[in-house]
Amino acid sequence: MFREIKEHVYRALSSLYDKGLMAYTWGNVSEIDHTRQYMAIKPSGLDLNHLHIEDIVIVDIKTGKVVEGDYKPSSDTSTHLELYRRFDTIGGIVHSHSINAVAFSQAGMDIPILGTTHADYFCGSIPCTRPLSDNEMENDYEINTGWVIIETIERRGYDPMSIPGIVVRNHGPFSWGVDAEQAVFYAGIMEIIAEMNFKTLCLNPNSEMPAKLIEKHWNRKNGPLAYYGQ
Amino acid sequence: MFREIKEHVYRALSSLYDKGLMAYTWGNVSEIDHTRQYMAIKPSGLDLNHLHIEDIVIVDIKTGKVVEGDYKPSSDTSTHLELYRRFDTIGGIVHSHSINAVAFSQAGMDIPILGTTHADYFCGSIPCTRPLSDNEMENDYEINTGWVIIETIERRGYDPMSIPGIVVRNHGPFSWGVDAEQAVFYAGIMEIIAEMNFKTLCLNPNSEMPAKLIEKHWNRKNGPLAYYGQ
Amino acid sequence: MFREIKEHVYRALSSLYDKGLMAYTWGNVSEIDHTRQYMAIKPSGLDLNHLHIEDIVIVDIKTGKVVEGDYKPSSDTSTHLELYRRFDTIGGIVHSHSINAVAFSQAGMDIPILGTTHADYFCGSIPCTRPLSDNEMENDYEINTGWVIIETIERRGYDPMSIPGIVVRNHGPFSWGVDAEQAVFYAGIMEIIAEMNFKTLCLNPNSEMPAKLIEKHWNRKNGPLAYYGQ
Amino acid sequence: MFREIKEHVYRALSSLYDKGLMAYTWGNVSEIDHTRQYMAIKPSGLDLNHLHIEDIVIVDIKTGKVVEGDYKPSSDTSTHLELYRRFDTIGGIVHSHSINAVAFSQAGMDIPILGTTHADYFCGSIPCTRPLSDNEMENDYEINTGWVIIETIERRGYDPMSIPGIVVRNHGPFSWGVDAEQAVFYAGIMEIIAEMNFKTLCLNPNSEMPAKLIEKHWNRKNGPLAYYGQ
Repeated sequence: MFREIKEHVYRALSSLYDKGLMAYTWGNVSEIDHTRQYMAIKPSGLDLNHLHIEDIVIVDIKTGKVVEGDYKPSSDTSTHLELYRRFDTIGGIVHSHSINAVAFSQAGMDIPILGTTHADYFCGSIPCTRPLSDNEMENDYEINTGWVIIETIERRGYDPMSIPGIVVRNHGPFSWGVDAEQAVFYAGIMEIIAEMNFKTLCLNPNSEMPAKLIEKHWNRKNGPLAYYGQ
Repeated sequence: MFREIKEHVYRALSSLYDKGLMAYTWGNVSEIDHTRQYMAIKPSGLDLNHLHIEDIVIVDIKTGKVVEGDYKPSSDTSTHLELYRRFDTIGGIVHSHSINAVAFSQAGMDIPILGTTHADYFCGSIPCTRPLSDNEMENDYEINTGWVIIETIERRGYDPMSIPGIVVRNHGPFSWGVDAEQAVFYAGIMEIIAEMNFKTLCLNPNSEMPAKLIEKHWNRKNGPLAYYGQ
Repeated sequence: MFREIKEHVYRALSSLYDKGLMAYTWGNVSEIDHTRQYMAIKPSGLDLNHLHIEDIVIVDIKTGKVVEGDYKPSSDTSTHLELYRRFDTIGGIVHSHSINAVAFSQAGMDIPILGTTHADYFCGSIPCTRPLSDNEMENDYEINTGWVIIETIERRGYDPMSIPGIVVRNHGPFSWGVDAEQAVFYAGIMEIIAEMNFKTLCLNPNSEMPAKLIEKHWNRKNGPLAYYGQ
Repeated sequence: MFREIKEHVYRALSSLYDKGLMAYTWGNVSEIDHTRQYMAIKPSGLDLNHLHIEDIVIVDIKTGKVVEGDYKPSSDTSTHLELYRRFDTIGGIVHSHSINAVAFSQAGMDIPILGTTHADYFCGSIPCTRPLSDNEMENDYEINTGWVIIETIERRGYDPMSIPGIVVRNHGPFSWGVDAEQAVFYAGIMEIIAEMNFKTLCLNPNSEMPAKLIEKHWNRKNGPLAYYGQ
């Protein structure tokens, strides 16, 4: 019954390892089924060498309970659940500890929008969330991680699909898409952009990009009159 | 009829991927035929895994119309056309988003000439273009990208074959040569030089190179009395 | 008799090379047997291509004498011995010259704790030892290297298994664990964290991490109520 | 007759490419025969794909004339000759454009001695030469490059085998050894040290290493009482 989303999650995990975005067990991937009742998610603490498709865990979106699978789901399960519950355009989520994106999260900085590579996929700076309060860390830490992502998106007032990723303060990047494969795609792009922007800011800390150029590239690829691609 | 330039463009694209200069679909390659009436160019938005030699698109240089091929040509087609129309020594063009060259373009900085690696192939700093005006971005963006490259070369008053590359502000590197293969060659050298110079400027922001040493290395390899090579 | 610990040390060395943590002959690995009377350690100055399992040297922990093996043991043997003698929870030790960890040791800086990647495995900053005195360098240099590691741990007052690694000033990283394999695991993590933190500090020299988040991640993975993993 | 030194030079070149120290045709290798009358050196401007053992050129040390080989020798031949003529302990020379060592040469900075990785092979900072005068560049540039290396070594007053490498200002690294293989070995170490030190100086521009620790590590490996290795 859940074969397809399990396969998608497994393949997305393989792809994360292949692209060098995931070391050890540092990351997780999930995908929601088309009814939006269940999600498939990586088991906690296992790396790809010890993982089979059938080990992917199925969790009920509403209750958060495991409904299929022999393993405990990812420790970040509650974070994924909050995002799926809040945004019904999100179909897949990736969390990784890719090095350059982590550097921005540890520096407490947005990944600023500085070039067209960025603007083709994210129509603004990729936000860094605020630090959680001590209370938010002590109680329901993973749920609150989901909430601080939601809060950041809603306070800044943008559609999560227009900037399909974020860096969680002192932690690392999350990205999302219509499915797990697309979430991996954005995870890869975030990491490359983060490396470009790290170097850009070392060269010139005052670098910036004209608003009109952001708009032009975003629309050329994603707007109603997009003319990039076939 | 256009088999040869299609093959050249296809092979140049493979080479860009092999050398790590191109990720995803981020870049394009073109080559003009010997009559300078037609160019072969990569289709828009396809990566190498989905590309065959026969998919390379043929465009009429004068009209800009597709004359052969099932796909839409690269979204940067007009930029390539402007360069071929203006400079009749240019036979092939490459655009990429290679990381270190993009860093200079995002920082709004020339890739400064600091060493002999650079001076052996580019006889001066590799310019960064000025930002486009809002109007230039809104109307005929790709044509204007070509024009700002031409304007930069002509204002600074040098032969485009003596510095066969440029970084477009907030965008990324373009390079050119007598054919697509040579344009890839210069794209690869620009990226290495950009990495060297990024590190050099981190170590010493005031680095520079004596004019006489630039002249010496350029002439040793490219001047009328060149004695490098066979 | 010592086959098992020799194999463990050999396999751990292979793993160090495979992960890119060791170049040339720059590093060593040891493991203590379950009686804590003997350790197996890499011979001095040999690289993996010239090394067989039977070449691994066995040293008596109490006397420091070689009891089996045709080669001289690692020049850092005395450093390993001091650590095994002092801390009976340490079962394996790795020393390497991995690039980013060395950079912190040469800069004379702790690898500061700045994110959850770090806090999942090391519950505080990874210390950099003080410089040795001239006298400590001239006489019993390797013993004193062991002592300055012990001194650093004890002055700062933490359990060596809660921060299973250190950088020795102007030298490089040491890490340890319950066995050689775990010591390699921590050597790999230290190098990744060092790269993340190098970039973080370039972006924002004042980066820091809330104490509560360190505690949360450390306990989530290592505390009595740990819920990460299976 | 010259088969052995040709093979050594060819193998050393392969090794430079394999280790990522040489891109395109950027570098050269030579080795002197045991009579110190002849050297084998790479032909100018050829890369490894177009090179066979028999293409390696033999040059007479005294006259600088080619005595065997169909190709022109490296454009840097005169630089190699000057070094062999001056220092009779040098048996092999490598020049490359490896990225991190070039960064120091372009920054006009010594590769400072900051750690034991360095002190195990080079008993002091690796000097950066002074800029050549305009006259030295215009006339006999390659000879003068050899001379400025010799001048640097002799003014600073050290044995070239105690610091078997240098960075030529705005150009790149040269290294040497008893033969071509050892010169490649030092070229590889210089590049790693340069990367370590680049990062160290970004973290802490005032980094330094106690003189006693330099002495200790140098002697442990290279002194009369060396005890590193077998």
